[in-house]
Amino acid sequence: MRILNLDGRLSLAVRDGAVDVETASGGTFPADVMSVYERWDEFAQWARDFSGAPDRSLDDAAVGPPVPRPAQVFAVGLNYRDHATEAGLGLPDRPMVFTKFPAAVTGPYGEIVLPSDTVDFEVELVAVVGRRARNVVESDAWAHIAGLTAGQDLSDRAEQLSGPPPQQYNLGKSFEGFAPIGPALVTPDEFADPDDIALGCQLSGVQMQKGRTRDFVFSIPQLVAHLSRILPLLPGDLIFTGTPSGIGWVRDPRRTIAPGEELVTFVEGIGEMRHTFVAR
Amino acid sequence: MRILNLDGRLSLAVRDGAVDVETASGGTFPADVMSVYERWDEFAQWARDFSGAPDRSLDDAAVGPPVPRPAQVFAVGLNYRDHATEAGLGLPDRPMVFTKFPAAVTGPYGEIVLPSDTVDFEVELVAVVGRRARNVVESDAWAHIAGLTAGQDLSDRAEQLSGPPPQQYNLGKSFEGFAPIGPALVTPDEFADPDDIALGCQLSGVQMQKGRTRDFVFSIPQLVAHLSRILPLLPGDLIFTGTPSGIGWVRDPRRTIAPGEELVTFVEGIGEMRHTFVAR
Repeated sequence: MRILNLDGRLSLAVRDGAVDVETASGGTFPADVMSVYERWDEFAQWARDFSGAPDRSLDDAAVGPPVPRPAQVFAVGLNYRDHATEAGLGLPDRPMVFTKFPAAVTGPYGEIVLPSDTVDFEVELVAVVGRRARNVVESDAWAHIAGLTAGQDLSDRAEQLSGPPPQQYNLGKSFEGFAPIGPALVTPDEFADPDDIALGCQLSGVQMQKGRTRDFVFSIPQLVAHLSRILPLLPGDLIFTGTPSGIGWVRDPRRTIAPGEELVTFVEGIGEMRHTFVAR
Repeated sequence: MRILNLDGRLSLAVRDGAVDVETASGGTFPADVMSVYERWDEFAQWARDFSGAPDRSLDDAAVGPPVPRPAQVFAVGLNYRDHATEAGLGLPDRPMVFTKFPAAVTGPYGEIVLPSDTVDFEVELVAVVGRRARNVVESDAWAHIAGLTAGQDLSDRAEQLSGPPPQQYNLGKSFEGFAPIGPALVTPDEFADPDDIALGCQLSGVQMQKGRTRDFVFSIPQLVAHLSRILPLLPGDLIFTGTPSGIGWVRDPRRTIAPGEELVTFVEGIGEMRHTFVAR
């Protein structure tokens, strides 16, 4: 099942098009995209049973973020062995967690403003919570995930790394538009193995990052278990699961995003996001 | 004007009691406490004009957090000169910002579970956003603040300070119940000088912290201006503005919160929060 935000309305991908969920469900589910995460199990059952025809075609310009207003965004640092190595840091003994403030969320296509010349890319798989989670054990964690989507953890490195510890990880990764997600939320059953998904990104046509989530230091079930031991995870919360190697900041020579460049972000089974960058 | 969350319903303090806003407004404003921040200017006008009698008495057991589900929580570190000194750190050249994840928010009275024996207190003044703010200049910043409330930035120091930079400031300050706020949201016009407010806290009857917000390194207008240059501030967002000196972790001998202790948090013009702690 593939969930879309089309013109701000909850939609379900069907064959080569989509259906508007409020219309197709006779109003059982409202158009508001966020409301579905509060009733995920009920909605997922309806969507699995739905067998109607598409009532609209897909159009990139209509596609917004599948979770436009997450209550909480957890972002995990150093969650791939090869990225921890390139960053010159050891492997963490527990997930290193920061936030991307929710107002930084944007859709899978469009322009993003560069606040500086030190902005870097980080392709990530993003897990979306579908059921309140508190003290969840690993073996039960996937049942609390509505689905997966692609994300970019855009980062202004100069801002992120400024000041003494704990530095400015949160703000440096939260400029407006710095948390694009999409194009669809895809349920875990759509993947051959939801614990082993390929992902990567290209900047101006050059492959920059490429990895597989089987190389996670902490798996999605381990992240859900760890976070839910500390506080409740809420329906619609996002977990940015970390980035593989290849980021621009540690390349020789250093690579950052320039105005006019296009970033293509790919996650297997989910699709592509495409963003162009403009100067402030 | 003093706004209360009574049994989850938006309420207005009136003389020695309160009125239920949905009832008193004839349904113009709904009972949902969060909805008022989306329509703050309209609501504030109605509340200023309201001249009716209280329809219920105040009862501590009914009082919840004045902002139960903030979209974003910005928390500022090292924002009092004397606290930066006691922490052995220099003054930041820009606000040091972390988050307390929103599910950590709780009300002004009640029990909080201690996840460890390394939990510390931090009394703070909390500003609540009442109008979307983006690229706001300092002179216009107060117009974007609905009001002020008291907060505790409870912190599990062992968790917060673990790992390499950026450490775990976000999770270490976000255990369930670690962001109590209340008892009321008080509008800025109620203060003789909203830029100079006394605050403090007592643990088991002993004064631990005492300060005045005129000693901020970054004032509330400066914080609003800085944050809104990075991303939009949304109605109902919280800004925890930092803590004055006297925290337990740097005392000699070190002082942390033990099961059975009571923490009383006081902010002038807002009132008192009272929490007792229990072992996990």
